[in-house]
Amino acid sequence: MKGKVTVRLKAGVLDVEGKAIEGALAKLGFNGVGAVRVGKVFEVELAETDPAAAKAALTAMAKGLLANPVMETFEVALEPG
Amino acid sequence: MKGKVTVRLKAGVLDVEGKAIEGALAKLGFNGVGAVRVGKVFEVELAETDPAAAKAALTAMAKGLLANPVMETFEVALEPG
Repeated sequence: MKGKVTVRLKAGVLDVEGKAIEGALAKLGFNGVGAVRVGKVFEVELAETDPAAAKAALTAMAKGLLANPVMETFEVALEPG
Repeated sequence: MKGKVTVRLKAGVLDVEGKAIEGALAKLGFNGVGAVRVGKVFEVELAETDPAAAKAALTAMAKGLLANPVMETFEVALEPG
């Protein structure tokens, strides 16, 4: 089973990389671009076959390693197939 | 309209960060974890309201700035609402 943990900065936290990309896109001639936010996605192969247990494991991984709870939020999902 | 560009390393490219996470997860006691791949997700607010034009703009941004075509692949998606 394959799972996905997406980690984003919390809404109030300044996204420096996103701001830099906004500026670069404007310089490249892309108009009408508003805020850009950058996040990370972790794709994890799991031996677990039970969806509920797999989600619980992904949540534990996010809390214990992948996300910084002070500045970031995360969501977990299972990939179909 | 809000769009999303997800950038991943190509399948054959060594994912050093993913490998480090695999090792850290094993040390933290997570069993049954296979390969971990790390990608980036860019969430972009667009003034464009036409879905086809928005997707085309996101694809151009990915090709021109967000993804490295030598080592990475990307996919674009529009967020509902």
